[in-house]
Amino acid sequence: MSITFDLSGCLSERLGAAGLPESTVLEKAASLRPALDRLAEVRKAGQGDPEFLLLPERRADLEPARDLAAALSERCDDVLILGTGGSSLGGQTLYALADAPLAPAHPRLHFVDNVDPFGFERLLDRLDMERTGVVAISKSGSTAETLCQFAVILEAMLQAVDESRLAGQAAIITEPKESPLAALAERWRLPRLDHNLGVGGRFSVLSIVGLLPAMLVGLDAAAFREGALEVVERALGKDGTALDSPAAGAALAILSQERGSSQSVLMPYVDRLADFGLWYRQLWAESLGKDGKGTTPIRALGPVDQHSQLQLYLQGPADKLFTLIRLETWGQGPRVPSKIVDDPRLAYLADRHMGDLLDAMARATAETLIRNGRPTRVLTLKRLDEFIMGALFMHFMLETVLAAELLGIDAFDQPAVEEGKVLAREYLAAGAGQ
Amino acid sequence: MSITFDLSGCLSERLGAAGLPESTVLEKAASLRPALDRLAEVRKAGQGDPEFLLLPERRADLEPARDLAAALSERCDDVLILGTGGSSLGGQTLYALADAPLAPAHPRLHFVDNVDPFGFERLLDRLDMERTGVVAISKSGSTAETLCQFAVILEAMLQAVDESRLAGQAAIITEPKESPLAALAERWRLPRLDHNLGVGGRFSVLSIVGLLPAMLVGLDAAAFREGALEVVERALGKDGTALDSPAAGAALAILSQERGSSQSVLMPYVDRLADFGLWYRQLWAESLGKDGKGTTPIRALGPVDQHSQLQLYLQGPADKLFTLIRLETWGQGPRVPSKIVDDPRLAYLADRHMGDLLDAMARATAETLIRNGRPTRVLTLKRLDEFIMGALFMHFMLETVLAAELLGIDAFDQPAVEEGKVLAREYLAAGAGQ
Repeated sequence: MSITFDLSGCLSERLGAAGLPESTVLEKAASLRPALDRLAEVRKAGQGDPEFLLLPERRADLEPARDLAAALSERCDDVLILGTGGSSLGGQTLYALADAPLAPAHPRLHFVDNVDPFGFERLLDRLDMERTGVVAISKSGSTAETLCQFAVILEAMLQAVDESRLAGQAAIITEPKESPLAALAERWRLPRLDHNLGVGGRFSVLSIVGLLPAMLVGLDAAAFREGALEVVERALGKDGTALDSPAAGAALAILSQERGSSQSVLMPYVDRLADFGLWYRQLWAESLGKDGKGTTPIRALGPVDQHSQLQLYLQGPADKLFTLIRLETWGQGPRVPSKIVDDPRLAYLADRHMGDLLDAMARATAETLIRNGRPTRVLTLKRLDEFIMGALFMHFMLETVLAAELLGIDAFDQPAVEEGKVLAREYLAAGAGQ
Repeated sequence: MSITFDLSGCLSERLGAAGLPESTVLEKAASLRPALDRLAEVRKAGQGDPEFLLLPERRADLEPARDLAAALSERCDDVLILGTGGSSLGGQTLYALADAPLAPAHPRLHFVDNVDPFGFERLLDRLDMERTGVVAISKSGSTAETLCQFAVILEAMLQAVDESRLAGQAAIITEPKESPLAALAERWRLPRLDHNLGVGGRFSVLSIVGLLPAMLVGLDAAAFREGALEVVERALGKDGTALDSPAAGAALAILSQERGSSQSVLMPYVDRLADFGLWYRQLWAESLGKDGKGTTPIRALGPVDQHSQLQLYLQGPADKLFTLIRLETWGQGPRVPSKIVDDPRLAYLADRHMGDLLDAMARATAETLIRNGRPTRVLTLKRLDEFIMGALFMHFMLETVLAAELLGIDAFDQPAVEEGKVLAREYLAAGAGQ
């Protein structure tokens, strides 16, 4: 495996009274064996729910997405990805991997997931609509924010280009059924890709919802799925309840909650994983937060949050489970020039690489949390690429589904959010806000 | 006041059993009267701690900052603001206010608050060092991350420009005393502005630490202080324990915690306040998270987090206090063109402004949270400008200081974070990470 999991900072041997006996974690993980077998059956059958388990081996669905990406890349300098929640966060996370001067063949992406008129207007002002593309993503095809954005952008496009060119610059991803978004696409003859019926938004990162944006900037879509495949095969196989398995991660979360950890902090020491924290936060919150159950996912980022949240983490209430993600960066990045820091007080920095400092801080924070009795799991990545990202996504999706299993709840619905949507429409219909 | 506070969604009259009696909140707020009087004395004397209370009326310290900003603006297309935690988050928040096509006279700012070598190198690659400025901010003058970044950037600058030009492009802000950063500035003859000795990083946004970046992009520094002045005068005066006061906000937080709210969610429905959430998160966490006390601040953003966190907020554990921030946006932004959404299912959207949708969603979410028994406070802003931002900053700083008073802890220290820093230096000295 290219990811190592160190759970020792959560176990009694290292953490003392605040820790869990290893045997307890392993027993709880073992209790998930029937669930793992059930999931393995779905994979074996090649059909059934949850469908996200079946994505790692698929390739046929990538072809039309690749064609669309190629067409948009050729025509556009900028592409707007409209969508919110699960229609956006996976793509954002993958795009962060391409944080490099993009080759001229690749457009800049803008993930438009909100409806604040101020920023939206300024974004449109900056774009040349003749060279701008747009992809609207909504599983249901009826997301108000996405439809609002899309309609405004289509109108702006029609002012800049002839209607006949619209289909070359605008496209949608939605379920293969009737909906307001589908009707819009039909009316304007826009290309359309299918959102998998059996893959909910927060589990869609390895579908074309996440992979189309990745392809737009030249990332290797198949490699994401290969990384996910390695994880899912091991996770549902004979080693599926070992200490580094998603089952053990789920067991750890639920056992920690029983001992008072109402919050789960994910703290990567990798800027490119900052958006991964947002993706995880939706996954965990929407899948588990129901029936009064669930824990609150918290997104942090190291080292910067050492200067913001660490005081609370170390000396505030002991109500958090920590997962730190390290990337091996020793020896990487610019060197601190000794001719500039020729100060004995800075001897610890002179000639060190920036990656050394990052690495030392990640290890020091993990150690300090553990010394202060805070349960801390450490993931270490050998490198960061499409394969590893795919593996990380699959690991955390499985961990979440298995945690739901332990809580006895349905990981795949979100029954509570409808009420607010209905109310918002009533307010809109009623007119002028007060 | 240009900000209204609606606490009714936290009170028993509206929230039922999950709410607090209004009289209980007012009594708790009234118990803060001696603390308010003590703070009022500091203001009357014009000296003493906490010094942040004295900033709203100061103007003299803005002159040298304005001169530096003018000089950097003339020479630079890009300015890097180095610093982390309190040396960065206030400036970032203010910069977000200037989210508009900047006039050509103003440089782009880059807040470099982390030490990930990957992103750092790519940022440097994109910059023309002949037209780039840098301001290193560290209160103590010994922050490892900032020193590391600064040394690398100074070396890069020296490769692009003559040493004699360095003082025109690089500057520091630090306390007026000896430190590694001060020594660096002296060695390279760089301009230096003073960090107030009595203003901790997380309370420094209205000092030049926050206001220099604001001035670099043409914002009105004095107006921030005027907004803060209006709040501090009222908060420490005869109305200082009314239901819309910082004292009542502190009372609400502490009383809610006693009833099980271990988390405090700040959810603006304003993209330009997304970074304000990060600023608040440090303020609340570092000031209160000690002695096993404090609550966890959580940064959310509406409406986008309705598609990520709302399910948990409504049906997960009832362990959160919510503060929503609305901006009056009805009638603002682009209209949804009815010729494009001529679908009866979208009648609720046709001809509506994007700002109508934002407004309806903010109100609907507040109402839904309250109907589900979740304590919810709503702040409404008439507009968003320097004055209002200054008022918001001061309100939340006072609320935090007064919450610490109710908890009986020192809001101004952060004793726990030293351990990790020492350990990181040991790891660096020991060499190669494992």
